[in-house]
Amino acid sequence: MKDLAMIPPGSTLGMLGGGQLGRMTALAAARLGYRTHVFTNEPDSPCAQVCAEATVADFTDQRALTAFAAAVDVVTLEWENVPPEALVVLAGQILVRPGAGVLAVTRDRILEKSFVNRLGIETTPWRRAGSAADVARATAELGRPAVLKAARLGYDGKGQVLLGEDSDPAAAWRQLAGDHGLDAVVEQFVDYACEISVIVARGPDGRRRGYPTVENQHEHHILARTIVPARISPALAARAEDIAAQITEALDVVGLLAVEMFVTRDGRVLVNELAPRPHNSGHWTLDACATSQFEQLVRAVCGLPLGPTDRACDAVMENLIGDQVGRWPELIAEPGARLHLYGKREVRPGRKLGHVTWLGRTE
Amino acid sequence: MKDLAMIPPGSTLGMLGGGQLGRMTALAAARLGYRTHVFTNEPDSPCAQVCAEATVADFTDQRALTAFAAAVDVVTLEWENVPPEALVVLAGQILVRPGAGVLAVTRDRILEKSFVNRLGIETTPWRRAGSAADVARATAELGRPAVLKAARLGYDGKGQVLLGEDSDPAAAWRQLAGDHGLDAVVEQFVDYACEISVIVARGPDGRRRGYPTVENQHEHHILARTIVPARISPALAARAEDIAAQITEALDVVGLLAVEMFVTRDGRVLVNELAPRPHNSGHWTLDACATSQFEQLVRAVCGLPLGPTDRACDAVMENLIGDQVGRWPELIAEPGARLHLYGKREVRPGRKLGHVTWLGRTE
Repeated sequence: MKDLAMIPPGSTLGMLGGGQLGRMTALAAARLGYRTHVFTNEPDSPCAQVCAEATVADFTDQRALTAFAAAVDVVTLEWENVPPEALVVLAGQILVRPGAGVLAVTRDRILEKSFVNRLGIETTPWRRAGSAADVARATAELGRPAVLKAARLGYDGKGQVLLGEDSDPAAAWRQLAGDHGLDAVVEQFVDYACEISVIVARGPDGRRRGYPTVENQHEHHILARTIVPARISPALAARAEDIAAQITEALDVVGLLAVEMFVTRDGRVLVNELAPRPHNSGHWTLDACATSQFEQLVRAVCGLPLGPTDRACDAVMENLIGDQVGRWPELIAEPGARLHLYGKREVRPGRKLGHVTWLGRTE
Repeated sequence: MKDLAMIPPGSTLGMLGGGQLGRMTALAAARLGYRTHVFTNEPDSPCAQVCAEATVADFTDQRALTAFAAAVDVVTLEWENVPPEALVVLAGQILVRPGAGVLAVTRDRILEKSFVNRLGIETTPWRRAGSAADVARATAELGRPAVLKAARLGYDGKGQVLLGEDSDPAAAWRQLAGDHGLDAVVEQFVDYACEISVIVARGPDGRRRGYPTVENQHEHHILARTIVPARISPALAARAEDIAAQITEALDVVGLLAVEMFVTRDGRVLVNELAPRPHNSGHWTLDACATSQFEQLVRAVCGLPLGPTDRACDAVMENLIGDQVGRWPELIAEPGARLHLYGKREVRPGRKLGHVTWLGRTE
């Protein structure tokens, strides 16, 4: 039986992971009167700077996990690669939302794509690969270019090898897997018209609210820009929103699910990836929606009514990656720009240090 | 010479006082990448729950003040009654904004009213009172009803005695002052048409931005409701904004100044009180302005460009006082209502536990 009890303001939200997604969730939780207690292995994390309590420990530290579970009223996460063993410890003591079942699917590309395909929803064509021979067979079937990806623990382009026209499958496999066994997938390189995403919130009572479809532009495998709304037909946007709702429902998500998709040149919508947490492509909701994705996550996991998800205006969000954060003095002086910085001390290439949203901009 | 250097994001904002005003400032500071370190005598304060660091100590603890000053990059405050001795300790080590000069004036009704009057700006008619005889003389001159107020340390109607038609000045004086000496004022009870306020931000370079004039409704001496914009003529609103700007400039405020005023039935604007900090009547700016009063305070004290202060729409803000906080389940379900709760565990009559802003409402 599901626990439908409301977790009221004044309660403590447990947050797994200490990055900017946790930070912005903690800020939204505070507005509603919640305390946040973060569990992270990073000292002085972006999230801990705005939390009532922080546990700095490894996700294998069962004692720390047990104490954390005892100190909070519900657990959510900003990082989907929390080790399953940690989730088992937590789930024995406290509500974890979204639950271990959702995370088991979304942390593994093979399970994730299989799950989506079983719903009758198209993904990028893909094959499972556990050896160089599998890679050779997959590229023969799918064509080239293709991408070899580790099934688990990849993000922002990490754990990926491009299989170009001249690539040697064996070399690619060695590059990804080294001498170890590894679960991987080969994905066809889709010649898409654009990348889009939809974020859906769902409460413990099954009520659901989706944000509008947005368009994403990546650079070096990292999200660079989100354009709101996506510059696609209303029919395609509706199709994308329907797909995201279906998957959220089928996975029985309590919390948020972000669904990344491709729109192909021939007008199909293919699911690329799922993320059961706030998503970079939803940062614009902080400034252009009555309820941001972060507040919505708090509402969903605490069993509060979900808030409105309409956009007040068009918007463009850009990430500030690495030394792009140096643009802050110009951005903070710009009346139409809303600047968000994450409190990270160290500027490294590829590191997300902040973002900016322009309201009323269309590209 | 003034220090015009920018205090960049990543720096630490020192906050004197741990209540909801500090909390909302810390949340705004975090959005811009600042850390907040709060100094408060209250354990588990609303502000500390969202701060990177908290010092829980008395304002007379010089060692704690010295360590605090060493740990932060600039100091601001959410409570204007910080003991002057504490400010002296801090100001010897670190920038305090607004400065001790501003606080010396605004913490004392006599200095405050004298300062305003010397600018040629009308206040409620008032007399200084240091004895029962002074009270008798003042009421004879000003008429009744009048209000006897301690010159220092009053808020939300505390430290006030009504002087009605039949009040005995000696009894009123004893009620306020007991057997001790006390600086006090007697203020004429103004038959005003409405109460209004204006919040002005000013940076170290003297640049200034004012929020629009709003209308305030008090119940039991506590702000109950703010209506945005004030339902007065544009000429009166402009007059109020001009008064607030003049006082901010004359006081050389770096930070925020809230100016509470009365509009009399014969169309005059009288200054009632000054507060050199975020103000309850500016909470609506969180939801209806691109830059909230809290973000503006951070910008002002850190020497960043001030943000836009226009209102996006009409708004009504209501405080949730004491058991009114029990309205939260209905308010959080209302699409047009933006709920803010302060993380205070104890519900007491007269205690401000949260507020709600309705966008687009006009009364």
